[in-house]
Amino acid sequence: MSTGVAAKRLKIVASQPEERLDWKKRKAERNEAKKQTKEAKLIKQLEKQKQQDTADGENLEQSQNKKGRAYTVSVALPGSVLDNAQSTELRTYLAGQIARACVVFCVDEIVVFDEQGEDVKSVEGEFKGVGKKGHACIQLARILQYLECPQYLRKWFFPKHKDLQYAGLLNPLDSPHHMRIDDESEYREGIVLDRPIKQGKGSLVNCGMRKDVRIDKQLQSGLRVTVKLSKTQSPGNQTSKICKGAVVAPHLPRTEAGLYWGYSVRLASCLSAVFTESPYDEGYDLTIGTSERGSSVDQTTLSPFKHLLVVFGGLQGLEASVDTDQNLEVTDPSVLFDLYLNTCPDQGSRTIRTEEAILVSMAGLRQKITAAFASNGSLNN
Amino acid sequence: MSTGVAAKRLKIVASQPEERLDWKKRKAERNEAKKQTKEAKLIKQLEKQKQQDTADGENLEQSQNKKGRAYTVSVALPGSVLDNAQSTELRTYLAGQIARACVVFCVDEIVVFDEQGEDVKSVEGEFKGVGKKGHACIQLARILQYLECPQYLRKWFFPKHKDLQYAGLLNPLDSPHHMRIDDESEYREGIVLDRPIKQGKGSLVNCGMRKDVRIDKQLQSGLRVTVKLSKTQSPGNQTSKICKGAVVAPHLPRTEAGLYWGYSVRLASCLSAVFTESPYDEGYDLTIGTSERGSSVDQTTLSPFKHLLVVFGGLQGLEASVDTDQNLEVTDPSVLFDLYLNTCPDQGSRTIRTEEAILVSMAGLRQKITAAFASNGSLNN
Ligand SMILES: C[S@@+](CC[C@H](N)C(=O)[O-])C[C@H]1O[C@@H](n2cnc3c(N)ncnc32)[C@H](O)[C@@H]1O
Ligand SMILES: C[S@@+](CC[C@H](N)C(=O)[O-])C[C@H]1O[C@@H](n2cnc3c(N)ncnc32)[C@H](O)[C@@H]1O
Repeated sequence: MSTGVAAKRLKIVASQPEERLDWKKRKAERNEAKKQTKEAKLIKQLEKQKQQDTADGENLEQSQNKKGRAYTVSVALPGSVLDNAQSTELRTYLAGQIARACVVFCVDEIVVFDEQGEDVKSVEGEFKGVGKKGHACIQLARILQYLECPQYLRKWFFPKHKDLQYAGLLNPLDSPHHMRIDDESEYREGIVLDRPIKQGKGSLVNCGMRKDVRIDKQLQSGLRVTVKLSKTQSPGNQTSKICKGAVVAPHLPRTEAGLYWGYSVRLASCLSAVFTESPYDEGYDLTIGTSERGSSVDQTTLSPFKHLLVVFGGLQGLEASVDTDQNLEVTDPSVLFDLYLNTCPDQGSRTIRTEEAILVSMAGLRQKITAAFASNGSLNN
Repeated sequence: MSTGVAAKRLKIVASQPEERLDWKKRKAERNEAKKQTKEAKLIKQLEKQKQQDTADGENLEQSQNKKGRAYTVSVALPGSVLDNAQSTELRTYLAGQIARACVVFCVDEIVVFDEQGEDVKSVEGEFKGVGKKGHACIQLARILQYLECPQYLRKWFFPKHKDLQYAGLLNPLDSPHHMRIDDESEYREGIVLDRPIKQGKGSLVNCGMRKDVRIDKQLQSGLRVTVKLSKTQSPGNQTSKICKGAVVAPHLPRTEAGLYWGYSVRLASCLSAVFTESPYDEGYDLTIGTSERGSSVDQTTLSPFKHLLVVFGGLQGLEASVDTDQNLEVTDPSVLFDLYLNTCPDQGSRTIRTEEAILVSMAGLRQKITAAFASNGSLNN
């Protein structure tokens, strides 16, 4: 699970837009990314240790109370949907629609899969800007990552705005982790600053507040971290130039406080890799394929799950995604999923576009998910 | 009800894009529109008469069988949503998103209301093309009408494409009444042709097929009509250059065959006019306002209705629409509606955009509507 939780941050760093055709720089950055993987693992370990230390204390109480959300929701779709757009501006806008649809329904992971054998192996590929066709997967992933990143951190992680030529057209996600400077919040996203650190003291982090935050650990500069701010800043110290906080695992705002904390982005080289490369050790325990040829969502009830995956097709539906996947022998997509659902019975248009289908399907599933966990809580079903 | 049913057609004619600054022409066209109102009324009367004639025959059987849909669904939103778009292209695209969202959920009427006191009294105003700001209501109505019109009729009703500058960016609605030339269908939309008519014979209608259709009545040329094609074209007459059909009320594909047959577009000068100027004699018998401050849709069940109205707000919500409406003394929008619903509890974005809210809300309500009429059918509830 550790890689999954950290993926959001590492991948953004690994594919910084400035790395264009500069191979040396890319290599250096890949090394940096590896370092950061280490750091992220460290964070995870420390996090686990901390939770164990206080297993019968406050933490356990919090993770058991109703506030936290234990499950995750992932959405997968083919990058080729971008090739559906009729202009370069609309290509960007479409990516933004997808990001917003996922945020509205608190999606924790977006998987962009290649259904055209584009040979995209990792998100580390070059980003050539928003072009007309091709490279759709990387472009979609890039724009999704850009939008997910809190505005105050973008200058660090997306320094060259021309790589996101039409970013100005994108509607903001307005998610809870996108804080304005004076917003009060228990958690904040930040970047570890490149400042000399005194022994025994933690690193300084920019969390987009008026003050920097001194965390409890020494971490490599440039790392994106989730910080839990100390509620009681040393009294009589109101004028201090620095806040205090602790680095926590990025899932903590969700699991402890029930806050929606953005999504991670993952690239998959084909449809089957969406399943097999799950960031969750246990994989996805509930998978739903969507199609107008699925069974009606109205007759469906969901059982509680840990990791839900909802998969959407592109212009030609999931059949096309199955066809181009050399690892899949089947032709009927429905056999790949626990449920294969028509989320819009009696649709008034012959075809629902993928970006519309996300909103429509997640709206239908939201009620079912709520019901699944409500009935679980009351021990019915 | 007669005006309501005919509204789709008349208004399109009344606001033909070519009428720009040519006042004489506009007056002439307004007169023509009046004539057409007469024609439409005639159609209605004949339709009613026909239904009575065969009250105990085939028609009644059909209207009672499960195929037909008796109820209607209307959606209302402020035209000001267009002013939210960040470019002129996106203004058009947004209008297209709204049209598509309504079609996906089989919406029969879209009401565009003015929440800015723009003094838009009728859809007959000039259409100045898709500009940057202002005239949002007429522009939205215009694009909605353009998209609703079957492609093969657009050259008649929307002859000058430059009035819809970015029409090329619009995604097609792909609704059942948008037929391709060789599609077989019991019903088709057509335009009455300007051809000499022999006494005792009906007019010729272009229904976008290879052959023109001889209808059972003599109607004014230029009128948009719904035609029910005769199943048995005179045998041995396969080579005839003409098909046969009967002009029917535009609601027949819905009420008899359960087909979704597009939407009509109505302009309202303020929020209250959405209610008071209903095209249905009985008005709307179920009205739903939407807001994040509404009560949860999850705890709502609907009873069967005849005419449902679902109202959306703009950037500032329905509060703003209530504020600018001089006919309304209230400040709390919820009192205006039978139900005031939050259709997306626990939303992950601070704000859901109107075009998103239509898909999300209608997806949530679709299940409730289905349930309402299903339980009605089985005589439960
Ligand atoms: C443009 S549609 C695909 C249409 C394609 N011709 C087909 O028959 O599947 C793109 C995607 O939207 C989703 N979708 C469209 N309509 C749907 C429906 N009624 N229920 C569930 N998902 C739908 C599916 O994921 C589909 O692959
Ligand atoms: C941008 S929102 C309005 C936001 C505005 N600040 C407010 O507080 O109402 C535009 C419209 O989308 C619809 N909408 C947004 N969120 C909704 C929700 N959770 N439930 C139902 N409708 C919603 C409402 O019709 C709203 O007026």
